[in-house]
Amino acid sequence: MQALKDRIQQEARVEGPDVLKVDNFLNHQVDVNFLNNIGQEFYKRFQGVIVDKILTVEASGIAIACIAAQYFNVPVVFAKKTESKNLDNDCYVSEIHSFTKNKTYKIMVSKRYLQPHERVLVIDDFLANGKAVLGLKEIIRLADADMVGAGIVIEKGFQPGGKELRQAGIRVESLVIVETMQNGQVTFR
Amino acid sequence: MQALKDRIQQEARVEGPDVLKVDNFLNHQVDVNFLNNIGQEFYKRFQGVIVDKILTVEASGIAIACIAAQYFNVPVVFAKKTESKNLDNDCYVSEIHSFTKNKTYKIMVSKRYLQPHERVLVIDDFLANGKAVLGLKEIIRLADADMVGAGIVIEKGFQPGGKELRQAGIRVESLVIVETMQNGQVTFR
Repeated sequence: MQALKDRIQQEARVEGPDVLKVDNFLNHQVDVNFLNNIGQEFYKRFQGVIVDKILTVEASGIAIACIAAQYFNVPVVFAKKTESKNLDNDCYVSEIHSFTKNKTYKIMVSKRYLQPHERVLVIDDFLANGKAVLGLKEIIRLADADMVGAGIVIEKGFQPGGKELRQAGIRVESLVIVETMQNGQVTFR
Repeated sequence: MQALKDRIQQEARVEGPDVLKVDNFLNHQVDVNFLNNIGQEFYKRFQGVIVDKILTVEASGIAIACIAAQYFNVPVVFAKKTESKNLDNDCYVSEIHSFTKNKTYKIMVSKRYLQPHERVLVIDDFLANGKAVLGLKEIIRLADADMVGAGIVIEKGFQPGGKELRQAGIRVESLVIVETMQNGQVTFR
C-alpha cells in the first residue's frame, strides 16, 4: 500500500533496532481519514472471504478494527488485557508475551461474543513476533470459531512472526512489510 | 437519544448498585453501525462548536471517538494509561482514580499531539464520578489548549460527576442520563 509506505517514510520515527513509532497517525494520534483508506484496503485484500466478526486486542487495534469493520459491515470484538488471576468462567483466556514491554499478560474475550463456527478476521496494527495474533487465534480456537485470516497494518519482516504465522497456515495480509530499519531509514520488502 | 435508551433497556445488564454492562454493543463487542448513530448525534449536539481534535482515553473510548471523528472530520488522540513512574518529559500527565477498579493510574498524552489553543472535544463512554473527564481536562490545560465540551454516551445521573463538571463550567452532552438502576431495571432522566 503505497500511501502507507509514504506516510511511514515521512512521519514514522525509528527508535532503536526494532521500534518504529507511528503514533502520529496510527496508535496515539489517529488520522481517521487515513484509517478509512486502510480499512478499504483490508476489505479489498479479503474480498471473497466471508467474515462474520472482526477480532482485535486493546488498545491500539481498536481504532483500526472499528474503521475497517464499516467496510465489512460486521461487529468488532476487542480482547481485553488483564493482570487479574481470577477470571470468571464466562471468558475465553489466552496469554500474550510482549517483547517490547518484556511482559506476559492475559487477554480475555467474553464467551457471549464469540460463537462456534463464526468466521473471524483478526486485525492488528503491528506484526513482529506474532504473539498477539497467536493469542487471538487461541481464543478463536477455544470458542470453536474459525479464523479466516489476519490483517496487519505494518509487519516487521525482520522479525519472525509473519513467517511463523504463514507456516502455521494462517492467511496473513500485511499492508506493508518493513524489511530493514537502519540509521533511521526504513526500507520495505 | 431514544435508540440508545431502547438498546440499554433491551441489552444492558445491571450488575450491582452502580454497574451497567453495555459490552454487547459499546465496549467489548462493538456495534459499529450503531456507533455511527452515536457519532452523528454527538456531531448534532455540538453543531456550531469549532472542534480541532477529539480526545479520549484508552481503551473503551477509542471506538466511539474514532467513529464520531468521521463526522467532525478531525483527528483523535487517545490518552494512554500507564503505571510507569518514569515518564519522559515529552508527555502531559495527569491522574485518574477509578472507583470501579478502586485504583489510581496515570494517563499521558505526548506533547506532539496537543497544541496550544487547539479546541478539544472530550469523548468517553461513561460519566459517573467524572474523574476521567477531569483527568483529560487537566491534560488539555497543561497543553494550553481549550476544552470545548464533553460528549458522553451514558451518564449515571445518580453519581456526582455530571453535576460537578457542569458546575465547573464544562459543557457536557450526555446522550442518555440514567436516573435509577434498581432491581435490574433502568430508568432515564
